[in-house]
Amino acid sequence: MLDKVLNAKSVAIIGASKNKTKRGYQAIKTLLADGFEGEIYPVNPKEDKILGLTCYRDIMDIEGDVDLALITTPARTIPDILKRCGQKKVAGAVIIAGGFRELGDKGKELEQAVVKAAQKNGIRFIGPNTSGMINLKTNMNLVGIQNAPLGNIALLCQSGNMALTLITEATIRKHEGFTYYVGVGNESDIKFHEYLEFFRNDPDTKVILMYVEGMSEGRKFLQEAYKTSIKKPIVLLKSGRSATGKRSAGSHTGSLAGVSEVAKAAYARAGIIVIENSDELFPVAETLSSQPPIKNNSIAILADGGGHATIAADLLSDYKIFMPQLSDKTQEQLRAILPEAASVVNPVDVAGGTDADPSLFADCVKIIIKDPNVGGILVVGLFGGYGIRFDKSLAIGEEAAAHRFGAMVKKRKKPILVHSLYSSHESRALDLLRHYDIPVHDSLDISCKCVASLCQYGNYLKSYHAKTNFVFNWKNRAKEKGNLIIETARQEGRHVLLEHEAKQLIKLHGGQTDVGQVAKTENEAWEIAKKTGNCVLKIVSPDILHKSDSRGVKLNLGSEKEIRNGFQQIIKNSLAYNPQADIRGVLVAPMAQKGLEIIIGTKTDELFGPVIMYGLGGIMVEIMKDVTFWVLPVSPAACRKMIEDTRSSVLLDGVRGQSGYDKKSLRKLISICSELIESYPDIEEMDLNPVILYEQGLDVVDARIILKK
Amino acid sequence: MLDKVLNAKSVAIIGASKNKTKRGYQAIKTLLADGFEGEIYPVNPKEDKILGLTCYRDIMDIEGDVDLALITTPARTIPDILKRCGQKKVAGAVIIAGGFRELGDKGKELEQAVVKAAQKNGIRFIGPNTSGMINLKTNMNLVGIQNAPLGNIALLCQSGNMALTLITEATIRKHEGFTYYVGVGNESDIKFHEYLEFFRNDPDTKVILMYVEGMSEGRKFLQEAYKTSIKKPIVLLKSGRSATGKRSAGSHTGSLAGVSEVAKAAYARAGIIVIENSDELFPVAETLSSQPPIKNNSIAILADGGGHATIAADLLSDYKIFMPQLSDKTQEQLRAILPEAASVVNPVDVAGGTDADPSLFADCVKIIIKDPNVGGILVVGLFGGYGIRFDKSLAIGEEAAAHRFGAMVKKRKKPILVHSLYSSHESRALDLLRHYDIPVHDSLDISCKCVASLCQYGNYLKSYHAKTNFVFNWKNRAKEKGNLIIETARQEGRHVLLEHEAKQLIKLHGGQTDVGQVAKTENEAWEIAKKTGNCVLKIVSPDILHKSDSRGVKLNLGSEKEIRNGFQQIIKNSLAYNPQADIRGVLVAPMAQKGLEIIIGTKTDELFGPVIMYGLGGIMVEIMKDVTFWVLPVSPAACRKMIEDTRSSVLLDGVRGQSGYDKKSLRKLISICSELIESYPDIEEMDLNPVILYEQGLDVVDARIILKK
Repeated sequence: MLDKVLNAKSVAIIGASKNKTKRGYQAIKTLLADGFEGEIYPVNPKEDKILGLTCYRDIMDIEGDVDLALITTPARTIPDILKRCGQKKVAGAVIIAGGFRELGDKGKELEQAVVKAAQKNGIRFIGPNTSGMINLKTNMNLVGIQNAPLGNIALLCQSGNMALTLITEATIRKHEGFTYYVGVGNESDIKFHEYLEFFRNDPDTKVILMYVEGMSEGRKFLQEAYKTSIKKPIVLLKSGRSATGKRSAGSHTGSLAGVSEVAKAAYARAGIIVIENSDELFPVAETLSSQPPIKNNSIAILADGGGHATIAADLLSDYKIFMPQLSDKTQEQLRAILPEAASVVNPVDVAGGTDADPSLFADCVKIIIKDPNVGGILVVGLFGGYGIRFDKSLAIGEEAAAHRFGAMVKKRKKPILVHSLYSSHESRALDLLRHYDIPVHDSLDISCKCVASLCQYGNYLKSYHAKTNFVFNWKNRAKEKGNLIIETARQEGRHVLLEHEAKQLIKLHGGQTDVGQVAKTENEAWEIAKKTGNCVLKIVSPDILHKSDSRGVKLNLGSEKEIRNGFQQIIKNSLAYNPQADIRGVLVAPMAQKGLEIIIGTKTDELFGPVIMYGLGGIMVEIMKDVTFWVLPVSPAACRKMIEDTRSSVLLDGVRGQSGYDKKSLRKLISICSELIESYPDIEEMDLNPVILYEQGLDVVDARIILKK
Repeated sequence: MLDKVLNAKSVAIIGASKNKTKRGYQAIKTLLADGFEGEIYPVNPKEDKILGLTCYRDIMDIEGDVDLALITTPARTIPDILKRCGQKKVAGAVIIAGGFRELGDKGKELEQAVVKAAQKNGIRFIGPNTSGMINLKTNMNLVGIQNAPLGNIALLCQSGNMALTLITEATIRKHEGFTYYVGVGNESDIKFHEYLEFFRNDPDTKVILMYVEGMSEGRKFLQEAYKTSIKKPIVLLKSGRSATGKRSAGSHTGSLAGVSEVAKAAYARAGIIVIENSDELFPVAETLSSQPPIKNNSIAILADGGGHATIAADLLSDYKIFMPQLSDKTQEQLRAILPEAASVVNPVDVAGGTDADPSLFADCVKIIIKDPNVGGILVVGLFGGYGIRFDKSLAIGEEAAAHRFGAMVKKRKKPILVHSLYSSHESRALDLLRHYDIPVHDSLDISCKCVASLCQYGNYLKSYHAKTNFVFNWKNRAKEKGNLIIETARQEGRHVLLEHEAKQLIKLHGGQTDVGQVAKTENEAWEIAKKTGNCVLKIVSPDILHKSDSRGVKLNLGSEKEIRNGFQQIIKNSLAYNPQADIRGVLVAPMAQKGLEIIIGTKTDELFGPVIMYGLGGIMVEIMKDVTFWVLPVSPAACRKMIEDTRSSVLLDGVRGQSGYDKKSLRKLISICSELIESYPDIEEMDLNPVILYEQGLDVVDARIILKK
């Protein structure tokens, strides 16, 4: 659908100009200079020719078809221009102008007018407030960044300066480049997820590289990302994490900055490689575009000196990547070719063994790469610089090794990455490695991050379940009784379910909870209580949400006197708290036994839609913020992972000789919450707090469900 | 004391050679090529002349004084050579050879022989197993790394490859360089702390840059670092943090890899700037060597585009650096010179305002730097590249701005740092910034880390207390009764104090604890208990350390029957657990009331000596590992900081309407532990677990003290 936009065969420049400082001049100049393969139609009522091309007074005067209009005129002119474009049956537009929502209400109105005009006239557009777009395959350069190298990375970027940064980096590194660059701008029409779909289906794109400040359709983006990342990796930097960062992003493009923890969980679930350090963004994309993913989360390090190996081992440990001991056979073979002082465990240190002939590096790599424990190899140190540092003649051996590295990557489907101190020097051996698509970096930090991203992507591919996705099958398991509970609340004008209603809803779907019974009188309370045993009494009123604050809760009551007194006091306290309260009675429920307190909540994230949170309860754990998030719906594997991803999960298995807790019931309860959200789209958020977990079973002790307003 | 070694005026090359591949040839060649200002004496019995210099058969044949001997011969020859050097009254030596402790027991023996020979002959030496040493001020290059630039950073490095990495980086960056490089090697004689002392007193050294794998005298190092970092910053990367990293470091130089959490606390306390990413090591040192520290932990960002500002704001927030709103006056002044779309809060975005004339950057910086809320400025974006990216003519304005930046740093004593996409391009403006000692980086990550290090150093200088240091005033407050308790244990051949002894010791120094009384019989137990109220009974036996494991503890006993039964059962259980146990009786102590459980422990770290740990108790908190460490002794400020540095410290202040806990008593107890360690050097470790903290006061409920063996 975006084909005519991103692969346009003809471009009209609306606002073409002879003034060299104007975008409408520069765009034509760049298209000519880069050798755009399609037609270029300058449009300006006042000119006849620009840069040797016929200039049209109006877009309708153009004889041929126009796929794309590059509009360089000011914001207020856009709606009219889109109308003219519609008459010409233009498929798409790139709107450069700023001055829309980023300027406040008035700009917002204008932006809406632009969107409306585009829709009415069947035009899809990029921007506004964008630096433009480049298709490097057809040399359609609508940005004016020169010398962007062709390659296999698609770049989606919400900041012109970051695009310039990444393209400049690619130019300096002289290896990998881009298929497309799209400056997403305000994302008013074409959204991130649509670009993603397009790049998924583009055969030349191997990796999608994204810089995101804000996004408007998070859920759809996740769904497309989920479909995409199984085919090709998505590398993403989300900025605006911090309060000041948001302030900064807010003054530019972008709408909503995702809450960090939820966003992290969401992106991870969709298989996206999230980057936090901008230095790593391009190298990681480059590595993923060329190297096979690592399947067993393990790497071997080959070093020609201690320091680099030690630093790399530390960093890789931080990433939780395994550095397996090499097999006996591997160690023996290495021993046979390396000096006595060499270390043949992992990291392998050649200890001067390569000083006389660096082609020995290839012999070592060949031995190590065959080891079945090893998922890939990171070479660290001076490789590629022996000819520079020691003696020119050594360069020959390095070049021979580089050729063999290239052959081995191809044959073994295991990645080789090279850290070299001499990465920015002139080195034929390193150029050869680049030719063979082997990543070369002079930063240990970045080399290790690249290894980590290959592991992360490999782990994701292994754990991918085609069945789970981000699409809701709304109402699929709703129950008649459940609908009735919600309808009743709606009819009463409530958007909060009463505690016993919420618990009933949970129970309907198989959740373990003692709902209790509502007593309207003191006598009823005692009648219920004497069959229950030790009781808790809680006020039932749609006007009192914070039951404890109103002193509307009494714990651990048993005798008739306690129950009757309790009932009276609760009613009295509640009326004192809110004399107008509509009091429905008092909920009588059995006291929960001691167990492990946990909390489960769902909410509707502004960006990603329904998400769920799980964590241990209690004040201390709340302070530690030891919780995990997941974007709903959940799979059984996801329930397991949510629990495992808390630091406190060891408690559930039992520590210090204590018996463990019923993780199966817990997983089931998380699933039930997911099912509830799917069954009743009316639910805005749920709060199960606390849930008491036992060795066998659990009890949802309190629950609150809030409906959408 | 190291002056004659590091500032030697004459060097003898023992093992001088005509063979070009030998170190003994290369060293002489480098000294000649670099123009060493002192005397060079080749020593080799078989040669007459090497590289035009007279070669001596024996060191004794040299007419002049010899300050330093560079010994390039194999390991086994060293002790004899040192003897000859001693006869010649040589002050120091650099021992290149490997083959010592890193090869196991035999190597260790040889290393000890070398140390002994050196001591006997009054020679201080660097190494062994080192790449050598360079004094860049006198061109005494004993390493063979060429083109190392002179500057004001002293480099202490425990890996030849890391030294090469850092020196190469300095060469590429073409700005900052070194006063000295010392390859510390096995640190057998001259230790890290001695080098530190030397560099502290070297007027040309402004920053000390360290790469450490292992260290042998941690406490002395901390003490010297403490004295040094108040005068000049120490920047340190400690590798071998991870298990694999240690394995890697172990196969090379270095002895003991410090435990990470303790090491972090120790280094921080000594004011050391600890770096974890090796890419940041040199840039941070360079920045600290040239820029004034930031005094109020705050920075302003000046940007010419959204993306960079947002990313920088995120990173700086991660470092907990404050980005203050600019004052009204500052905002007004910026408004007056910037276009309407500009953002004049912090980050400031010029929004195209500099496009026509980048000298406007200097106007903005001038306005912002005067704002009293602002501690420094980070310029991010394209500065220095306007002439490259847009139009050559713009370079003039950039150069004018660069000159003004330089003048402002000098005048205002506030740092300016520049991130520029064009850092590795040819740019006169950026060269000018470097001339004015303004750090320029093309990495946002590194720029922000440099800002963070200026803040960290500034914060340290502000919080520095001259009174606290790492020196113990051993036994300064020991008490006679306390000594008696320890002596008693010693006389009985015990290295563990019994619980009541440990508690008595704590109480002697003012700690709040109910020691209880030891009952030898059931009757005695009841006699004590009836005066006590609710009791806990615990077995007292030097042979039973884990009282609970032996079922030797009974809680919450009150009645005569409970006490008598309890006493009997404890004795019975304990004898069943260990029939040979020397049972001294049963400790009868009052049951502690409910409160907040905390733990305090001290241990003797192999590297740093006595350290203390504080944290909340209870299983959950143990799982969360929410504890802080400090190297003893502690100051009152340290006690406060230890408590504040736990995430759980908010609990102590009272949350959710709960009242808080007695932090004053807690701080006092931490001080008392410090005092105990100083008073009784015999103590190896203490474990106060649990301590129950109340609204008023606290109670040390259980305590264990272990003496040195």
